Amino acid sequence: MSNNSNKPAVVLVSGGMDSAVTLAIARERGFACYALSVAYGQRHSSELLAAAKLASKQQAIAHKTVSVDLRSIGGSALTADIDVPEQGGDGIPVTYVPARNTIMLSIALGWAEVIGANDIFCGVNAVDYSGYPDCRPAFIEAFEKLANLATRSGIEGSGIQVHAPLMSMSKADIAREGLRLAIDFSETVSCYSADDEGRACGHCDACRLRAEGFASAGISDPTRYR
Amino acid sequence: MSNNSNKPAVVLVSGGMDSAVTLAIARERGFACYALSVAYGQRHSSELLAAAKLASKQQAIAHKTVSVDLRSIGGSALTADIDVPEQGGDGIPVTYVPARNTIMLSIALGWAEVIGANDIFCGVNAVDYSGYPDCRPAFIEAFEKLANLATRSGIEGSGIQVHAPLMSMSKADIAREGLRLAIDFSETVSCYSADDEGRACGHCDACRLRAEGFASAGISDPTRYR
Repeated sequence: MSNNSNKPAVVLVSGGMDSAVTLAIARERGFACYALSVAYGQRHSSELLAAAKLASKQQAIAHKTVSVDLRSIGGSALTADIDVPEQGGDGIPVTYVPARNTIMLSIALGWAEVIGANDIFCGVNAVDYSGYPDCRPAFIEAFEKLANLATRSGIEGSGIQVHAPLMSMSKADIAREGLRLAIDFSETVSCYSADDEGRACGHCDACRLRAEGFASAGISDPTRYR
Repeated sequence: MSNNSNKPAVVLVSGGMDSAVTLAIARERGFACYALSVAYGQRHSSELLAAAKLASKQQAIAHKTVSVDLRSIGGSALTADIDVPEQGGDGIPVTYVPARNTIMLSIALGWAEVIGANDIFCGVNAVDYSGYPDCRPAFIEAFEKLANLATRSGIEGSGIQVHAPLMSMSKADIAREGLRLAIDFSETVSCYSADDEGRACGHCDACRLRAEGFASAGISDPTRYR
């Protein structure tokens, strides 16, 4: 697996379960990982602390947090004054942060250019994806195309590749993959309204998907609930 | 021209000459303009004051400034501790901010979703573009494609259109267009190292392109130099 001989890669690390597994996969594939967290004014800032811990455990070369204040444009239960619902409905949920993955990948692209990385990893997932539009294969492909038109590397260099290794995994697959990679999921924070210690509510969409993932993988749920 | 009957549009307004003309064009086309500035840690923060003034003069419905701290990833003379060169060389210059237009358009896309706008305007220009890769028609087309995959509006609604009305204009064309639209260019700031009052250095790439634009349009240069 380790055929990338320490090529630099930017890995988006939110501190949740999916990005923890993504980071471990990137490392297993032999990349020198530059972990990037984007602080977009989310309520659950304990995620960011979890991200820093994950980056260090997975021996990332560096971990940066870039702040972008999406609260000023609002529009989501995660960034504005809208209640996080306790169960999902139909269509795109209120926890959807407008253009979030586009913004996070754009910042990752900027850092990739600076460090000369041709590879970007993100943990988006089209299976148990809460109905967000920016978590689908077509979105990732379109971003990769854009990245190659937008940058030095796409024009003068060897191009940008966007990896979404969890794309076609279920939450149960992700839980199993994390177990194989020895990730301590008790240190990851997925909950939309985690408290300051990163303890989960157990009721929101993210908690529900995560708990179902552990259950259907037959793994006992290591999440710290409050 | 005014056939858009007050449809909302997000207009990226940096405070420079190009975005001033872009905003006036969007307004002339009948859009209700939501002016967006992105504070990416640029040295020339007097641009942002100019942007606020332009938004107000052009009767924008709102003006928001979203901060994203690109200084933490560095890589450009505009955000890191690299000297701004006094004249352009070959290739992509050091004033290129990695993935800047991708990041700014992504944030514009987020706001467009929040206010229900299907239109985004930006002042990128492929003619006198200082050699930046993210200022070309193919980039804008790729972003539009991405935007329609990334958002509610692209999936459930009537889609996103990204307008770059200056794309094929020379700086002289832009100067003339601004004159026609009664823009006071003395209030716009293009210089990469403007002082706190927005006065230009007269030597950097941006100053040079701008001065050449006025000269070849036969317009006396209204720029406030220090």
